[in-house]
Amino acid sequence: MPKISEKRKAERREQILAAARRCFAELGYEGATVVRLEEATGLSRGAIFNYFPSKEELFVELAVQDSARMSELWVNEGLEAVVREVMDIDPAWLAVYLELIRRVRTDADFRGRIEARQAEVAPVNRAKVEQGQRSGEFRNDVEAKEIGIFVNLVLNGLALQRASGEEPPSAELVLSLLGDAIGGRAPAETPPRTRP
Amino acid sequence: MPKISEKRKAERREQILAAARRCFAELGYEGATVVRLEEATGLSRGAIFNYFPSKEELFVELAVQDSARMSELWVNEGLEAVVREVMDIDPAWLAVYLELIRRVRTDADFRGRIEARQAEVAPVNRAKVEQGQRSGEFRNDVEAKEIGIFVNLVLNGLALQRASGEEPPSAELVLSLLGDAIGGRAPAETPPRTRP
Repeated sequence: MPKISEKRKAERREQILAAARRCFAELGYEGATVVRLEEATGLSRGAIFNYFPSKEELFVELAVQDSARMSELWVNEGLEAVVREVMDIDPAWLAVYLELIRRVRTDADFRGRIEARQAEVAPVNRAKVEQGQRSGEFRNDVEAKEIGIFVNLVLNGLALQRASGEEPPSAELVLSLLGDAIGGRAPAETPPRTRP
Repeated sequence: MPKISEKRKAERREQILAAARRCFAELGYEGATVVRLEEATGLSRGAIFNYFPSKEELFVELAVQDSARMSELWVNEGLEAVVREVMDIDPAWLAVYLELIRRVRTDADFRGRIEARQAEVAPVNRAKVEQGQRSGEFRNDVEAKEIGIFVNLVLNGLALQRASGEEPPSAELVLSLLGDAIGGRAPAETPPRTRP
């Protein structure tokens, strides 16, 4: 029997991930049983678990895809693109993250695997903030890390609001107030320090 | 048989709510079965459902308690007290909200009952923002509603982060950047408009 090519393997992997994403979003993480995953992918559980050893692993890979895409947007297109992306993501998929929050907090192994993958994009994201601080896009009187923390608070708040089905605020409002919090300060606002 | 007094009824109601809160936080909303609620409250399901017709109703009442307490803090003590409260709430309890987000979005009846109760505190919260705009605590070049939206984004982001078990940022950082987004503008920052 001929071996399945690497290209075919990669395609099938993507096909499984895309179907799993739809399935989790539609049914919730708990509702997406193995039987439903089989239906959504059109593959047997044996074939699925040949690529991803567990349902949990499927979720972790989808989360990794998301952080990679967000990081790419952030680095290449900046804050506005990221805010607009969070406003565009399917609320049903966002809710899957929230459904798993309890497990992230209480299951050290699960948490560790997600954090390890997020740590891969963290330095690139941080470097982008530092670059913005040098160019004057972001304020430089607080640490780059602190700017990242605040942006994440706002993006997470937006994700939570969208997942709950609330009417989201306009991207313009979010960008304007967020800009006032983290944007570069005009020189007049930083009075020169008097030397003792 | 003597009737149970109104005072005793109110006490028992509070006792059931407190036990249900602990039970939901410990086991998650789905994990908190009726049997576990019986154990936690020390009452039969008949007694519990005499006060609250369903598990869902128990959750709605706990959410109502939370919005009432947050509104009271906001009105009486202001933004800092609210931020510190979100940083103090049991993360396990916050996760229960997130677990139910999917239902809030997809179950119109559930959503309606929660929104109706939240609508009770909304005018008081809004009036407090408007008062802050008059006193100069908050900027008055955006609408009170917009300030409320942004504060909620940040508080929700903080709640989500804490529910996931992440190390929260310092309250000082959050208050400082949030203050820059929504705080009153120094007169110098608003150049006088030239009349045509």
